[in-house]
Amino acid sequence: MDSVAVIGASMTRFGQRDAWIRELLAEAGQACLDDAGVEPDAVDHLYVSNMASGELEGQTGVPNALAQDLSAVPAYTARIDQTSSSGGAGIYAAWQSVASEASEMTLLVGGEKMTHRSTAEATDVIASLTHPVEYKHGVTLPSFAGLTARLYLDTYDAPRESLGKVAVKNHRNGVDNPHAQFRKEVDLETVLDSPIVADPLRLYDFCPITDGSAALLFCPESVAREYADEYVVISGIGGATDTHVVHERADPTTMGGVVNSSEQAYEMADIGPDDVDVAELHDMFTILEFLQSEDLGFFEKGEGWKAVEEGVTDRDGDLPINTSGGLKSKGHPLGASGVAQAYEIYSQLTGQAGDRQVEAETGLACNVGGFGNCVTTTIMEARR
Amino acid sequence: MDSVAVIGASMTRFGQRDAWIRELLAEAGQACLDDAGVEPDAVDHLYVSNMASGELEGQTGVPNALAQDLSAVPAYTARIDQTSSSGGAGIYAAWQSVASEASEMTLLVGGEKMTHRSTAEATDVIASLTHPVEYKHGVTLPSFAGLTARLYLDTYDAPRESLGKVAVKNHRNGVDNPHAQFRKEVDLETVLDSPIVADPLRLYDFCPITDGSAALLFCPESVAREYADEYVVISGIGGATDTHVVHERADPTTMGGVVNSSEQAYEMADIGPDDVDVAELHDMFTILEFLQSEDLGFFEKGEGWKAVEEGVTDRDGDLPINTSGGLKSKGHPLGASGVAQAYEIYSQLTGQAGDRQVEAETGLACNVGGFGNCVTTTIMEARR
Repeated sequence: MDSVAVIGASMTRFGQRDAWIRELLAEAGQACLDDAGVEPDAVDHLYVSNMASGELEGQTGVPNALAQDLSAVPAYTARIDQTSSSGGAGIYAAWQSVASEASEMTLLVGGEKMTHRSTAEATDVIASLTHPVEYKHGVTLPSFAGLTARLYLDTYDAPRESLGKVAVKNHRNGVDNPHAQFRKEVDLETVLDSPIVADPLRLYDFCPITDGSAALLFCPESVAREYADEYVVISGIGGATDTHVVHERADPTTMGGVVNSSEQAYEMADIGPDDVDVAELHDMFTILEFLQSEDLGFFEKGEGWKAVEEGVTDRDGDLPINTSGGLKSKGHPLGASGVAQAYEIYSQLTGQAGDRQVEAETGLACNVGGFGNCVTTTIMEARR
Repeated sequence: MDSVAVIGASMTRFGQRDAWIRELLAEAGQACLDDAGVEPDAVDHLYVSNMASGELEGQTGVPNALAQDLSAVPAYTARIDQTSSSGGAGIYAAWQSVASEASEMTLLVGGEKMTHRSTAEATDVIASLTHPVEYKHGVTLPSFAGLTARLYLDTYDAPRESLGKVAVKNHRNGVDNPHAQFRKEVDLETVLDSPIVADPLRLYDFCPITDGSAALLFCPESVAREYADEYVVISGIGGATDTHVVHERADPTTMGGVVNSSEQAYEMADIGPDDVDVAELHDMFTILEFLQSEDLGFFEKGEGWKAVEEGVTDRDGDLPINTSGGLKSKGHPLGASGVAQAYEIYSQLTGQAGDRQVEAETGLACNVGGFGNCVTTTIMEARR
């Protein structure tokens, strides 16, 4: 079977944007087509990763709007929702559309418009993804994060400071990302002194509420060569759920969806975690970067915090993680985030990452829905 | 490439149900697994076709809930939304998951819970899929239907009564469908004397607001033979958009998405419209059955109404259409409808349609999103 290639990528500026979802999607979608040099009438399938345009904006049917706005009609279109991992689910859908030969050119655009709603409103829309048995007791994703962080620190004898260092690292990376919501360094003291949100986690342990969009263009590798000398292939991809009721998990510091989805992706790519040169992890909360870096097999269980302490995951370390700034400083427009992770890996593998550039042939993106309720892992390899 | 087979199907009773979306999805999903004799741990991918659980119920993340409720964790899951054609889009996603070899066993469950909201509220949520330039002038899907019906009757010199006869036929079929919302015949006079909703269309020209769910189980044909002697294959499938702004269409009595998606499906199945033995069309409004029966190539443009007048589309006619009762009498729980169309075709092709049974080897389902904004067409063939 022909491999599935990515021949174009784009993302809008993330942050507080004076634009609705339709405008954000069209901005990223058009930029992606321009990046690849592909005309809209070549697009067969058009997928939109978006969790909540209806709930947040009262606007549904956005894939049809985008098809018209990009002049891509009669391209087939649909919306893919997997809550905060809608972007990763969109990548999986786009991959399947090309791998099944249903489409020869698939455009994926992920996006969310959130900042017009209050933090409480946005948090509640997101919390509506949790199991009612937890939701009705007032559980939100930040509160899961606080409970899990406390358990992790206690179980693995990790210092509170190590969590703060994830925020410091990712903010430092974000300074060099022109698309990031926050382009400012923060020091450890600022993180540790910020207001408590869900003990032991504080304000700077959390990603912000964000507007933004990102896009990727997929085609068979045989077609990719017509458009580009340098591109990437999706060499591995997988997706998996964990229990919907978070408190039913035997060990809440292990994300089963990360373990299972990455096993699928590694097997398909025929590589192991040691072969990954650069990774984008879903650091919606600082604690999640530890959990994923362990569940992906990068580090032993309970030792992800040491890697951050020792600088292993710094941009100049052995395994740079979140060179984009991560969700933490880049921002987290739900449906866009997984697509923007892949945009960063694509940029790194094609040598277009500017001041953030690292040396990498193989990259991995891990996109987490809910509190690990569903996860997709994507492995990309450079082709030059 | 191995064909994609359907080895199980189910639907819940449609109508006003004292159950939330999660319960409806679990009911259909479990019944489908039981029908096929497949254990939940054999399911690799689980897709949920649903437009608006967040908007209508304040509940998101339903695919994860379903994975847990069916004991299908760690199966990968995502929600597929294509407004009123979410079910057809789900079939396309499920087909792609198997055809791409990402999954060997994919369960698709479509559903919607609507009747707890007023007709005005539900209609407004649905209308939010229209282009803002039309939505802000108060356009709803029923009003598009009225305008189009008037144009059709004038252009093709069709009598108003012919529209009414679609409702009469589909209600007659629905009497024999134990899952249908309305199991009662209506006579032409009742339809023509019912209250005006969008002139010339009256109450009985419209489908109801409905709760319900339906499910299908997909696998490669080589795997299907392990589970069943009789099953169906998806021999053709396609999807296409039309303009999102309905008033920009050159001829509003032609649905470009139906034309384009069916051309793809016919080509893939290597058949033409004359080879179709039974069809389920998206009769959300009576006028839509005329448009689709013409745009699918069953009848000449402007002559679909004559086929209904002459009984061609009756259950004992040359081409039975909507043997299930259609959306008109069976009901239209948005995300379930496209899946339930395929359930009817599956039932007909496997000889399980009871009192509705017709002779058929090849069936077609056409699922329309918005007012033809995006359409999927699926062709199924019996394997015995």
